[in-house]
Amino acid sequence: MNNNLSQVKAMTFDVFGTVVDWRSSIAREIKEMGQRKGFVLDWDSFADEWRSGYKPAMDKVRNGELPWTKIDTLHRMILDEMLTRHQISNMSEDEKDYLNRAWHRLDPWPDSVKGLTLLKKDHIISSLSNGNVALLVNMAKYGGLPWDTVLSAEIARHYKPDAEAYLSTGEYLGLPIHQVMMVAAHKNDLESAKSNGMMTGYVPRPKEHGINTVTDYGDEDYIDIIADDFIDLSRKMSSIKKSSQ
Amino acid sequence: MNNNLSQVKAMTFDVFGTVVDWRSSIAREIKEMGQRKGFVLDWDSFADEWRSGYKPAMDKVRNGELPWTKIDTLHRMILDEMLTRHQISNMSEDEKDYLNRAWHRLDPWPDSVKGLTLLKKDHIISSLSNGNVALLVNMAKYGGLPWDTVLSAEIARHYKPDAEAYLSTGEYLGLPIHQVMMVAAHKNDLESAKSNGMMTGYVPRPKEHGINTVTDYGDEDYIDIIADDFIDLSRKMSSIKKSSQ
Repeated sequence: MNNNLSQVKAMTFDVFGTVVDWRSSIAREIKEMGQRKGFVLDWDSFADEWRSGYKPAMDKVRNGELPWTKIDTLHRMILDEMLTRHQISNMSEDEKDYLNRAWHRLDPWPDSVKGLTLLKKDHIISSLSNGNVALLVNMAKYGGLPWDTVLSAEIARHYKPDAEAYLSTGEYLGLPIHQVMMVAAHKNDLESAKSNGMMTGYVPRPKEHGINTVTDYGDEDYIDIIADDFIDLSRKMSSIKKSSQ
Repeated sequence: MNNNLSQVKAMTFDVFGTVVDWRSSIAREIKEMGQRKGFVLDWDSFADEWRSGYKPAMDKVRNGELPWTKIDTLHRMILDEMLTRHQISNMSEDEKDYLNRAWHRLDPWPDSVKGLTLLKKDHIISSLSNGNVALLVNMAKYGGLPWDTVLSAEIARHYKPDAEAYLSTGEYLGLPIHQVMMVAAHKNDLESAKSNGMMTGYVPRPKEHGINTVTDYGDEDYIDIIADDFIDLSRKMSSIKKSSQ
């Protein structure tokens, strides 16, 4: 555990998978739409397929193949391709738009709201997500996420793992970057955050990809703290602050 | 009163003077510093003087004389000039920095927290201030302002009254601009908001400039709704929504 943890003033959170359970939320919404429109799919696989289109789409923005494009638009491009591939042709524009906004209605993990509320007492808490601001604000209202503010790749105009996304947290929050901790369920996010000078908190989410999946509990040297969930993270951060006083 | 008020989904608030009482907060902090450091000034006038340097400093950024510069830095430039002018030379760098951050510790008007909490039930609520993000986040934590998110000229990279500042609200919140209402105690802010397509709410703050000042209660045609305070605004917005259903 890193001794500098007691200096952390702000915590920025990855959102999809770390704060919210995108997979079962998306599967539920596509199932509801299928039942209304008369199509049947493997709902979980549809959610996985949608999510798997996300990184290649962002990479097109990151490498300049696409101009700046927000996640709502990328999600819709992927959805349109998937509907064609699955030969679903009876959805109206309003229905497609509604389904696309399922990403604004993702359920928090059971500990998320309570854990964030506890962490908010002693820290500035913010998203740092590739989701666009509207998506994150709507999701926070839907799920009751008590952010102090919403930071997003859309504000930095760079998707994670670009350095600019991580560095924007210190710039906007007015803090030296080592006083900001990135919290994520994904190690690649934390490795990039650390290489840009942030502190890092790893909160594995064993159910992100459904049951019967393997979770990586390894504690690499770019991880400053590891916790079971946000409530556990809050307890651990409190005890670090107390012991440093 | 404008019939389209029932379509408002988000409300963005001017902050200095509209949500918080900058004048008595700043006067109190400069008085505390003066008592500690052994100087005496007219504390209210000092607050007024500091505030009056703000628009000319922003205008230098708006007209390109200065590159993008955040309000914390502009406040400090003005403060340094004032300390020289008032021949106060015994403050350390830490003390000057602390005093400069008095703008992060401004008291909300008595109705602000309750009114915003009521408005938050049916609307997205955000700042739209020339204050930088860190200032606004710290102020929200200090005063308990329950923003859904913080929007700022710093994010738009344009100070109000530039069009880009107002238009950024619709862009980031994912709404057509006429579904976003600018709320301010200053008519020039509302006139610019309206000319960029926003709805407008006028909440005069008779005590902003101290006692014995004249308040303008005129209801110009660029004002869609006028209210006594945020609690009154919340009541009026609720009754508009109900009557449109």
